[in-house]
Amino acid sequence: MENLYDVLIIGAGPAGMTAGIYAKRAELSVAIIEGTGIYGGQILNTYEVENYPGFESISGLELGDKFRAHAEKFGVPFIDENVTKITDADKIKEVTLENGDVLRTKAVILATGARNRKLEVEGEERLSGCGVSYCATCDGGFFKNKEVVVCGGGNTAVEDGIFLSRICKKVYVIHRREEFRADKTLVGKLKSCPNVEILWNTKVTAINGNEQVESVTVTNTKDTTDEDENQTISVDGVFVAIGTVPESELYVGLASLDEAGYVVANEDCKTGTFGLFVAGDVRKKPIKQVITAASDGANAVNSVVEFLNAY
Amino acid sequence: MENLYDVLIIGAGPAGMTAGIYAKRAELSVAIIEGTGIYGGQILNTYEVENYPGFESISGLELGDKFRAHAEKFGVPFIDENVTKITDADKIKEVTLENGDVLRTKAVILATGARNRKLEVEGEERLSGCGVSYCATCDGGFFKNKEVVVCGGGNTAVEDGIFLSRICKKVYVIHRREEFRADKTLVGKLKSCPNVEILWNTKVTAINGNEQVESVTVTNTKDTTDEDENQTISVDGVFVAIGTVPESELYVGLASLDEAGYVVANEDCKTGTFGLFVAGDVRKKPIKQVITAASDGANAVNSVVEFLNAY
Repeated sequence: MENLYDVLIIGAGPAGMTAGIYAKRAELSVAIIEGTGIYGGQILNTYEVENYPGFESISGLELGDKFRAHAEKFGVPFIDENVTKITDADKIKEVTLENGDVLRTKAVILATGARNRKLEVEGEERLSGCGVSYCATCDGGFFKNKEVVVCGGGNTAVEDGIFLSRICKKVYVIHRREEFRADKTLVGKLKSCPNVEILWNTKVTAINGNEQVESVTVTNTKDTTDEDENQTISVDGVFVAIGTVPESELYVGLASLDEAGYVVANEDCKTGTFGLFVAGDVRKKPIKQVITAASDGANAVNSVVEFLNAY
Repeated sequence: MENLYDVLIIGAGPAGMTAGIYAKRAELSVAIIEGTGIYGGQILNTYEVENYPGFESISGLELGDKFRAHAEKFGVPFIDENVTKITDADKIKEVTLENGDVLRTKAVILATGARNRKLEVEGEERLSGCGVSYCATCDGGFFKNKEVVVCGGGNTAVEDGIFLSRICKKVYVIHRREEFRADKTLVGKLKSCPNVEILWNTKVTAINGNEQVESVTVTNTKDTTDEDENQTISVDGVFVAIGTVPESELYVGLASLDEAGYVVANEDCKTGTFGLFVAGDVRKKPIKQVITAASDGANAVNSVVEFLNAY
């Protein structure tokens, strides 16, 4: 008889690997499918992780390895393939892999995460993790008494500016327009921070530095007739806060997504679709952290166990 | 001027200590208040912890120590006192300690946890952590191919029975009455497990063993005329699933509690009371685990930061 999984987990970040650990400890038949060859998800893009409780300081790579080793210790199998399709077949879900294989399962946990929207300027990719960060909550602590730039104009950018103003010596908030999209209270708060300078109608056009960020090149967005108007600002860090993009293209029509593409589910991780659960950054949730993603993995399996009990 | 905290955290379990780490990294003025002298909360009562991702296997004591060391590394102060009262004074909360001190703070995170309801029989306390467990999800994995008893008749007991039947050689479910309070689907599932034996109208009167659980003494609850009717069942583990009691006596009238006494809040940990947040097992939530408690700590501080931005 053909193999029928209890649950397949798509994505090997903190959410997916925690779900794997919990599923295996519940003696479910399970596998984690991850096509990128990356185990640990977005933590791999961060500096030292200092806010995953229990590890005072650990590199993203090392933490990802520990999660994977933990899952492997319990015998969770990893399938190194991309998923191309998820379809319903009666009470069964069929998960199609890039190599053509079709896996059958009672439940699926979507744990594909999200990626940060990039500025797409010179130096950004090269200095990512070396002064360029996409998460002030995660990395702000590394810039104590330093000078940083925040790029963006939404709630996240303004909150990051306020947050970083308590930690850093000086914070430049750089926004393309002449007004923030963020809530008024937040904007008021940001403007009252004495060490924050807001640069309106400005965009970062390059991030400079050898091994670490040393400066950003900025240009005026209103009056760009003269290339020589480029300015250089010396900073130690660049926080890019122009949004995240959920990896949910595959789930269109399968689960309910919000306007930004995140899968809608409460903390119990139930999508509302029979047999479909969601965990980690791809879920619409208040705060995206390693610890909250891992927590989702546990919650999702708890809901899967409940689901299988009634199956 | 008198000291005014940004946030005081009551309770030094995984939720409270994670909240401390996040609060300090956000440069908030914070302290954790814990009067029991115990740092780590309920994890200290468990066997090896195998399901906190990143640590394949660690004792509860050691994990608690790591959380505390992590919080201390960031300079979180611990106040070794019991809280006797929390009162509102305008936009400020006043937290009264047993020694009479009154601390003033803008926000409070309630993280006092919950305790397991005890059978209150001989051997229970002595063998707690040595075969006696209050959490099948946490400790079931240690009883692979062994024989265990589950005590209780609600959803948790029946779910634990099903869960353990996949792991253990034999599972006795012992219930005082002749019917479960649990959902019918679950009961049907439990009854269909070939290695589960249900003992109705029965209660455990003693847990026996030297260093580890070796057996339980049970007695009939219907016909107790003769003391000699006591029976002994050889088992390796006893799972007590007769409910938990939230440590929320202090919050009556302060926050909204459910009928069992848990503080009502979504995953954002906002209680609905101005300046009052809740994290960990004392919150009404789907699953109580170290990882979900720690996640609450991060979520609560995120909400506190939002609250302080609008303060």
